[in-house]
Amino acid sequence: MSNATTIETLRRMLASLDDAKKYQSLRDVLSTINAPDLAAVFEDLPQEKMPVLFRLCPKDLAADVFAELTPETQEALIRGLTDKELKVVVEELCADDAADLVEEMPASVVKRILSQAEPDTRKMINELLKYPEDSAGGVMTTEFMELSPEWTVRRAMEEIRQKGFDKETINNCYVTGSDRTLVGVVSLRGLVLEKNENRRIDDMMDTAVISVTTGTDREQTSQLFEKYGFLAIPVVDGENRLVGIVTIDDAISILQDEASEDFAKMNAMAPADKPYFKRTLWNLYKSRAPWLLFLMLSATFSSLVIRGYEDALAAVTVLTAYIPMLTDAGGNAGSQSTSTIIRGMAVGEIRPHDLPRILWREFRVALLCGATLAVCNMAKLILFDRVGVMIAMVVCLTLFCTILISQLIGGILPVAAEKVGIDPAVMASPLITTIVDTTTLLVYFNIAKLLLHI
Amino acid sequence: MSNATTIETLRRMLASLDDAKKYQSLRDVLSTINAPDLAAVFEDLPQEKMPVLFRLCPKDLAADVFAELTPETQEALIRGLTDKELKVVVEELCADDAADLVEEMPASVVKRILSQAEPDTRKMINELLKYPEDSAGGVMTTEFMELSPEWTVRRAMEEIRQKGFDKETINNCYVTGSDRTLVGVVSLRGLVLEKNENRRIDDMMDTAVISVTTGTDREQTSQLFEKYGFLAIPVVDGENRLVGIVTIDDAISILQDEASEDFAKMNAMAPADKPYFKRTLWNLYKSRAPWLLFLMLSATFSSLVIRGYEDALAAVTVLTAYIPMLTDAGGNAGSQSTSTIIRGMAVGEIRPHDLPRILWREFRVALLCGATLAVCNMAKLILFDRVGVMIAMVVCLTLFCTILISQLIGGILPVAAEKVGIDPAVMASPLITTIVDTTTLLVYFNIAKLLLHI
Repeated sequence: MSNATTIETLRRMLASLDDAKKYQSLRDVLSTINAPDLAAVFEDLPQEKMPVLFRLCPKDLAADVFAELTPETQEALIRGLTDKELKVVVEELCADDAADLVEEMPASVVKRILSQAEPDTRKMINELLKYPEDSAGGVMTTEFMELSPEWTVRRAMEEIRQKGFDKETINNCYVTGSDRTLVGVVSLRGLVLEKNENRRIDDMMDTAVISVTTGTDREQTSQLFEKYGFLAIPVVDGENRLVGIVTIDDAISILQDEASEDFAKMNAMAPADKPYFKRTLWNLYKSRAPWLLFLMLSATFSSLVIRGYEDALAAVTVLTAYIPMLTDAGGNAGSQSTSTIIRGMAVGEIRPHDLPRILWREFRVALLCGATLAVCNMAKLILFDRVGVMIAMVVCLTLFCTILISQLIGGILPVAAEKVGIDPAVMASPLITTIVDTTTLLVYFNIAKLLLHI
Repeated sequence: MSNATTIETLRRMLASLDDAKKYQSLRDVLSTINAPDLAAVFEDLPQEKMPVLFRLCPKDLAADVFAELTPETQEALIRGLTDKELKVVVEELCADDAADLVEEMPASVVKRILSQAEPDTRKMINELLKYPEDSAGGVMTTEFMELSPEWTVRRAMEEIRQKGFDKETINNCYVTGSDRTLVGVVSLRGLVLEKNENRRIDDMMDTAVISVTTGTDREQTSQLFEKYGFLAIPVVDGENRLVGIVTIDDAISILQDEASEDFAKMNAMAPADKPYFKRTLWNLYKSRAPWLLFLMLSATFSSLVIRGYEDALAAVTVLTAYIPMLTDAGGNAGSQSTSTIIRGMAVGEIRPHDLPRILWREFRVALLCGATLAVCNMAKLILFDRVGVMIAMVVCLTLFCTILISQLIGGILPVAAEKVGIDPAVMASPLITTIVDTTTLLVYFNIAKLLLHI
């Protein structure tokens, strides 16, 4: 199994073979390494070594390795390649990887890439660049296997043998009518296992084919893979004409990226598209400091509330001791609801129109949680902290209200954000603490004034 | 595209066909619906309707629908099936789904299932039940396509045509030596596109095959799919003998489940294995209340700190106003680091032995963030809040120290948890607030005493 140690071993082995100029052995060794591991080695190679090693890789491996590299390393490598070598790489890349490359490179490099690409490749790249990055169109590839409904299994297999090499996948083949509209899907498995070679494709194809349009959100598209167990999903245009497919390897990366993005946003950070150790300090700083600053400034509200009730606090100083406990309890309860709802929406279990049902559930759960906490805290305050009964009442009543309010706000916020078109993870999670703090303190001091007559 | 509305439409259509006793039409309609959608319809069907509708489904669709149902619905349905019908379902299920079923059902149902299974199926199920649920062995299937290295492509294709029907996937076929040791992998695509039918399998197979062992963690196994773009990963025993494969549809569910689990744990909840609306109130309560309770009790420390410095607070009451801002800033900064590291470990970017590098990065980022916040807050305190310079100094110095300490603790906690074998998401995230609160308050009051001479 591959890990950091393997990569390190590979790196040393390749370096020593290179130093000894054993190019034939290097070539042999290279072809036994899989692309992602080799890409990891390339990432840390000195720039002048890259083209040398790259030239020694077999052509298809070279393209696979290239597709796995970070944009920075791709750029460095391209600068070391001749036009002819670049042409080979560009033509070997999958259409979607080529489009991603063009999107990432600076203008001068893009010009070189496009000038080296064959007219067909250039057309495919330009086609893919039309769609927004976060849509199915933006992540699809145009290299899919297309069959006609009137063909026999034999004819289809001939077609696959002839054209299959260039396709990103042939495990699923898509059946299109004369106007290129999508009419069905057959699996390579189905074709291979079919005993009657003369059976027509339209007789055996699955017509209940699920597709997305070019504009479908890439996260929604990826969720369909989990739900239906697909290996690829066809992408159609407004007239149901097949224009591309999204493959499962892209879907799995998208789902992982989206989850990572939500983790970042829910913890008050701007999401990053690079691994932790690949990010610069400045990049880490930029994703964290603005949110910290914003939340610090919004804590002004809680300061204002406390200053407004300074007299009450001065009269009963022990009240101060429970401020962190109360605001934390509210914050924790609020995050529980918010994160449950946000994740539920991310995996497609919860939809905005479910709001009334959400509120009713959260309300009842909050009643139970609030009551439990209040009762336990009452016991603790009286038996261990030995505060007066009235003070304990104030704290526990506040605790109960806080849990109730926080879980309700926590349930509403993400749905409200979604409804007004803001990302729930950005809006709801980092804000919940600030909102809950202010509400909790207001409740606390008002209950205190009422019960303690201060 | 399928969604809640589609399911609702299907439900109504099936109900009205059923009421009108149009069984032939029902049968025709059923075979056009895909399994996950049909399963969603079954979930909300009255129990007595289930077997009727189930019997009308084509055999293979019935098995697929069955595999998609929740354990509760599976159990209800099984109770309505005859032994003969149950036998058909069990035999049609994939081996791993059958094993999952046996794991989930109560003993009486398990007995019925195993008594209906063929000896071979029973053996496969028992084989799979040996492995822990969260290991590669626990999620693999034993129905994979096995080839011999000395076969020709023609022979291999004959074998696939003969035995492929029962396999979970034939897109990848695994090559094993005489002692069943795994020696290589060939794709169905490679076999189909191979022009020379007499080429030997060992000549064309990929020998750099990446495998996991039965004991490999299921999350680690699933990460390999994203990294290498596999559709299946072979699982071997201690002697490198092939015992099963994990397929990408299972991997994608595992990755999504693990992310959901981390979301839950990082927000102080016990993870749930059911969708939000499928959970009972009691289940929601049980996953939330214990954590809230635990965190409430651990806030005792912050109360103790505040009570210990009651005199200082009474002397300079304005200090209270900044307690929520300071603890929140610390909490936010801490969550930023913790969640970054936890997610990095979950996707395999960060490993426990990276701790020194993590600390060095977090330390520098924290210096930058802390300085930014302290400077901005200084301006705000003096210009807007109009507090004294010395008080502003106390607050801002504390703010700086808090950010620094929180991000460092946030970086250490998850790695420390991992090292002692506790799930970082459980240990680190919910605890960070409590730890940070106490430290922040201690720093705050001590700086205040020092600078304000109270």
